[in-house]
Amino acid sequence: MSFTTDYGLDDGFVAACHGVIARIAPQVRVIDVAHRVPPQDIRHGSAILAQTAPYLPPAVHVAVIDPGVGTTRRGVVIVAGESLLVGPDNGLLVPAAEALGGIRAAYDLTERRYWLHPEVPATFHGRDIFAPAGAHLATGVSPHQLGAAVAPADLVRLPEPHVEVTSGRIHADILTIDHFGNLQLAATAGDLRAAGLEPGDSITVSAGGPESGAAVGRTFADVPLDALVLYPDAVGHIAVAVNSGSAAARLAARRNTTMTVAKAAG
Amino acid sequence: MSFTTDYGLDDGFVAACHGVIARIAPQVRVIDVAHRVPPQDIRHGSAILAQTAPYLPPAVHVAVIDPGVGTTRRGVVIVAGESLLVGPDNGLLVPAAEALGGIRAAYDLTERRYWLHPEVPATFHGRDIFAPAGAHLATGVSPHQLGAAVAPADLVRLPEPHVEVTSGRIHADILTIDHFGNLQLAATAGDLRAAGLEPGDSITVSAGGPESGAAVGRTFADVPLDALVLYPDAVGHIAVAVNSGSAAARLAARRNTTMTVAKAAG
Amino acid sequence: MSFTTDYGLDDGFVAACHGVIARIAPQVRVIDVAHRVPPQDIRHGSAILAQTAPYLPPAVHVAVIDPGVGTTRRGVVIVAGESLLVGPDNGLLVPAAEALGGIRAAYDLTERRYWLHPEVPATFHGRDIFAPAGAHLATGVSPHQLGAAVAPADLVRLPEPHVEVTSGRIHADILTIDHFGNLQLAATAGDLRAAGLEPGDSITVSAGGPESGAAVGRTFADVPLDALVLYPDAVGHIAVAVNSGSAAARLAARRNTTMTVAKAAG
Repeated sequence: MSFTTDYGLDDGFVAACHGVIARIAPQVRVIDVAHRVPPQDIRHGSAILAQTAPYLPPAVHVAVIDPGVGTTRRGVVIVAGESLLVGPDNGLLVPAAEALGGIRAAYDLTERRYWLHPEVPATFHGRDIFAPAGAHLATGVSPHQLGAAVAPADLVRLPEPHVEVTSGRIHADILTIDHFGNLQLAATAGDLRAAGLEPGDSITVSAGGPESGAAVGRTFADVPLDALVLYPDAVGHIAVAVNSGSAAARLAARRNTTMTVAKAAG
Repeated sequence: MSFTTDYGLDDGFVAACHGVIARIAPQVRVIDVAHRVPPQDIRHGSAILAQTAPYLPPAVHVAVIDPGVGTTRRGVVIVAGESLLVGPDNGLLVPAAEALGGIRAAYDLTERRYWLHPEVPATFHGRDIFAPAGAHLATGVSPHQLGAAVAPADLVRLPEPHVEVTSGRIHADILTIDHFGNLQLAATAGDLRAAGLEPGDSITVSAGGPESGAAVGRTFADVPLDALVLYPDAVGHIAVAVNSGSAAARLAARRNTTMTVAKAAG
Repeated sequence: MSFTTDYGLDDGFVAACHGVIARIAPQVRVIDVAHRVPPQDIRHGSAILAQTAPYLPPAVHVAVIDPGVGTTRRGVVIVAGESLLVGPDNGLLVPAAEALGGIRAAYDLTERRYWLHPEVPATFHGRDIFAPAGAHLATGVSPHQLGAAVAPADLVRLPEPHVEVTSGRIHADILTIDHFGNLQLAATAGDLRAAGLEPGDSITVSAGGPESGAAVGRTFADVPLDALVLYPDAVGHIAVAVNSGSAAARLAARRNTTMTVAKAAG
């Protein structure tokens, strides 16, 4: 199994879920994907999960970033490739499902016998619904036993991030900013080629503020220390980094804003 | 086993303890409860442990928040329900012992053959005393083998948190503040009923500062976005939250201060 | 296995490596040593690893703090005692190798059949080279199968930290600052004896700023609450702490600066 949340690491919430899983499925190993996703940031969590899950063994992936807890939003299990994804039906799971081979089926988590208690307190669905559902699936319960089928087309989806490519120019949303301050764009290595940009090209980048000079490279090390580089990252997106520094700090960039990349004049 | 400390995640301290456990008890799985408890905050750590341990499998729970390391405070193992609790005798373990079924026995960790080394350096009892004691217990050593019996009444206890309930009014200590900024009070859902407060009631809440309007609800979603709600939380306490926001920030609340909840006039 | 990086816990990078390991070596247990090493701080990471690894079971220790990723720096496996160390050849692994019994052999990680993919993207060597190499070693592949032998003398080493001991006086680099604000010096308990300093002695300490009074002790508890103490720490170094406070804050100390300890006049 894997487990992704925005619960943070300051409280016992992640451990309570691990405990519920260990009681139901004591032999199952759980890999923690990330728990410090910014609170209630579904898009960021979905990007992390989609970019990590393909490197994990085929498994049950439980993910809970759930601003709608306590409302009538569904809980679902999605069948995708050889894996299962369990969590709220708010768009969080869909990008990972696509990265794992596409959605084959989905089911509403309404069958209370697979919840922790028949009467669930309304505030902690991770511990009381999603973790036990995931653990039962990991022990061999079939997804269809968990509730009624949901048509894949009826699953909630996040709006597509903005990506616009023209000759010599890319506008794209910043998808994630990592711990090193590297800015990952929603655009891909294919978009880079479509814009006619190649390793060695001089470019400008801006994230709303003034333009900064940068170069297209294959890796950080293609530019001098402290210089900006645009490169294809390890999961197929393009990213902007500072060699041995933080591009987020340099460009005052924030997630969910748009970055402009343009071929430098001359 | 489970493991709870205030060691943080920046250093190798938690891993050194995991390593000591893995050397003594290689088959035993360890669930990390929390390691980012604020340094030396015994009460906060004890609340996290007491609220999490009931969801874990019956196990040896090692916990180390230990401002008195190097003094003559005892190390103990407490037998509670089907579980064992190992750590300093400073009140940290008692609430969890009660949540797990009550204290059946306790022993002083004086038997040096179960320490990491017969001559223990005085600064790292987690690695040198508590982790090895827990690991030996997990492999089947009996608690009474670890040292002399301690009368349960002689164990150190934390002062009870303040809770005062009258008709339409609750004064209670803030027990924990979680990662989302939700304020958990020492008062329980029973205290809420005893005060005659019900879902839908309009109330005021204050944490030392000015009063803010709020509502009693069953969940966040019972109030509009950005509004304050008082609700029974997932472990039986009552808590104050902002729907999709931080109550701690809104009310400038800090742990170990008292909150006042009162039925609104009219 | 153990795993040490500067990847942080905000992203899915650590989990992607765990996933790669679990696919190759599903039975192998991985202990996370630390992932919040300050970005690209090889010396800090090497100190944490060297001080933690001796407490772990003999194992494959993978560590990645790698400012030179994308350059021509080597990846290596080092044979040390009963353990193997895998990571970049930038000095990170050598102190741990010495703590584990000394370097017996080393090999360049050039054999692509043990990489995740024959064509490795240039940005994520942890996931694509070091984690798979470590996992293959954990399943029984011999280190020499991973590439050509490297003479131990040819491995990159960090400059030795500065330690200067005279009668009544120690100048030494601050090696690590932990979560509690304790300052660990590169000097050892032996250096303390060589300087003629003993428990109970009054001393002054300074980290570039004004001198503060302190005492030599065996543990925090040898000085009053809030007082400064110099003591032998749990891994054989000497450290400066404030009893129930932060020495780093008190002395405005930073890593990689030098601290002066001197016997007080009179």
